[in-house]
Amino acid sequence: MHFVSIGDFTTEAGAVIADVTIAYQTWGENQGDNVVLVEHALTGDSDAATWWEGLVGPGRAIDTDEYFVVCTNVLGGCRGTTGPSSPHPEGGFWGSRFPAISIRDQVSAEHAALTALGLEKFTAVIGGSMGGARALEWCAMYPDQVGAALILAVSARASAWQIGIQAQQITSIEKDPEWHGGDFYELGPGPITGMGTARKLAHLTYRGELEIDERFGADAQDGENPRGAFRRRDQRFAVESYLDHQARKLAERFDPGSYVILTEALNRHDIGRGRGGLNRALANIKVPTFVVGVDTDILYPYHQQEHLSRNLGNLLGMGKIVSPVGHDAFLTETRQLDQLTRRFFRLARS
Amino acid sequence: MHFVSIGDFTTEAGAVIADVTIAYQTWGENQGDNVVLVEHALTGDSDAATWWEGLVGPGRAIDTDEYFVVCTNVLGGCRGTTGPSSPHPEGGFWGSRFPAISIRDQVSAEHAALTALGLEKFTAVIGGSMGGARALEWCAMYPDQVGAALILAVSARASAWQIGIQAQQITSIEKDPEWHGGDFYELGPGPITGMGTARKLAHLTYRGELEIDERFGADAQDGENPRGAFRRRDQRFAVESYLDHQARKLAERFDPGSYVILTEALNRHDIGRGRGGLNRALANIKVPTFVVGVDTDILYPYHQQEHLSRNLGNLLGMGKIVSPVGHDAFLTETRQLDQLTRRFFRLARS
Repeated sequence: MHFVSIGDFTTEAGAVIADVTIAYQTWGENQGDNVVLVEHALTGDSDAATWWEGLVGPGRAIDTDEYFVVCTNVLGGCRGTTGPSSPHPEGGFWGSRFPAISIRDQVSAEHAALTALGLEKFTAVIGGSMGGARALEWCAMYPDQVGAALILAVSARASAWQIGIQAQQITSIEKDPEWHGGDFYELGPGPITGMGTARKLAHLTYRGELEIDERFGADAQDGENPRGAFRRRDQRFAVESYLDHQARKLAERFDPGSYVILTEALNRHDIGRGRGGLNRALANIKVPTFVVGVDTDILYPYHQQEHLSRNLGNLLGMGKIVSPVGHDAFLTETRQLDQLTRRFFRLARS
Repeated sequence: MHFVSIGDFTTEAGAVIADVTIAYQTWGENQGDNVVLVEHALTGDSDAATWWEGLVGPGRAIDTDEYFVVCTNVLGGCRGTTGPSSPHPEGGFWGSRFPAISIRDQVSAEHAALTALGLEKFTAVIGGSMGGARALEWCAMYPDQVGAALILAVSARASAWQIGIQAQQITSIEKDPEWHGGDFYELGPGPITGMGTARKLAHLTYRGELEIDERFGADAQDGENPRGAFRRRDQRFAVESYLDHQARKLAERFDPGSYVILTEALNRHDIGRGRGGLNRALANIKVPTFVVGVDTDILYPYHQQEHLSRNLGNLLGMGKIVSPVGHDAFLTETRQLDQLTRRFFRLARS
């Protein structure tokens, strides 16, 4: 992992984050006209070759023998880039002093970092979910620098349903007594329980019910009886144990402060803000775009990608991933993703 | 509202609930061969003519000029029937002494109450969501007493996804410090906050994102700014205020103990348990059934009603409600419900 400093950063809403560092990784060789920027999702990081293993690498659809692939950790994150868990220049950790950020702030900060690295032309910008929101904002904010964009499993703005369920996730963290108003870093274990609850809810929006049901159905967890004479919290269905496991796994690798900041950024996602509304903003995007959705996605339902496709100013094409997996299919359905990404590159080149 | 005592009740899992009372209401005149049993959903009650106003009444599809309509409040509920908030025969309230119940327990208790009232033949049993689960169990448990059944927006068993999100709802109540292990009734206000959280989550599964979005989009709540420089919990999107309102409304009319017991019963719903599995159980149901689903239901997705229809032993027909509303369309899409219910009665009579 590498780091680049972008100095003080002022957010869209007017707060200043002093002395921002952006973490990044690259693969392949920079030949000037072969730079591909990959954007990670909420709890992702700059290690695209790991979290998108089937798609990024030598001979893969995002071919590191052909392209110079760059991936940065998002502003507000916790995997190298400045976020709530980073040391504050005046001492302690950022915590509650870290302001709310938007998707546009994430893109501005990334743009500053890439500019500092001398990267100013991108053959393609590619991302799904929160990464898709950033790819879309790249097209609106820096159209002259983006050759084409592949935008997966995202919408033109947060829907009321998303805001509703994401606000619940934020609340579950903020109501954990270990949150301490966001300044828990030197006070204890942090709001692990609250973030666990948030993760379980989120996971149920990331995974299609068909996929969860094919794995767990209504099975009891081994050795437990969730159908006893009295309800007991330690007698679980298998799916409950699975969600508990997902919660624990995230707690080991992710900062609750970043979880709140990045979820809030998703709630603020709105490509139309200050641009004459959604459809005008989309129509004004002249970067060639290829839009992909998942048929069973309940977080970013397919009609949202249809909306993008109908309104974007220069659509290369649209693809539908058919899968029981739901939203996360943009990470897991490797064969379909491979085909769609190769098709995107062919169309973008032609 | 009327009441009927059924004495001591033993649950499927072997616990005894002493001295059970079932609340009920009726409309129309009992002519022996015109009894229609209506089953309410999770937070419903025996007042079917109110919560299903467009469907139950003189001249309505469930015509109280023609039928003698009966609706009982479910075992474990809080609207007249014995539940956790009822006085315990030995003093205090049932609270944690109230055992876990299944959908079958709800039906057994209702059956005992109706038997006590001399009602033994039902022209039709009709219900949606948890009421649909009960209607389905009626067909499996008392087939000789059911002329036909109209089953809406439910599945043959709880899916892993449902169990996952419903377990989260239960947990949010049980983790509220005011829960006191279920024995909060004489100790304070009760787990209002926890039940509020549960309700918000539930509501997001009851309402389709299209419907919520057409009402709220990403609008700010009047007078609040959810896009300020720092995140503040009192600066909300409109949908957050709406969900807060839903939470408050439920707290005014529903008991958290009942919410836990009935949600747990939904998690235990499984028409196949002890009957050779789902499809054998459905195939053995010879009661004529009509199955209805909602195209945008994420809680009981339409493929679950297709599964019922493919496997039920004597299917009259199937109907799809097309609506942005999601699961709750079985309560709100009056015109379509009216048509489908009239069609059900026509087919059941022929």
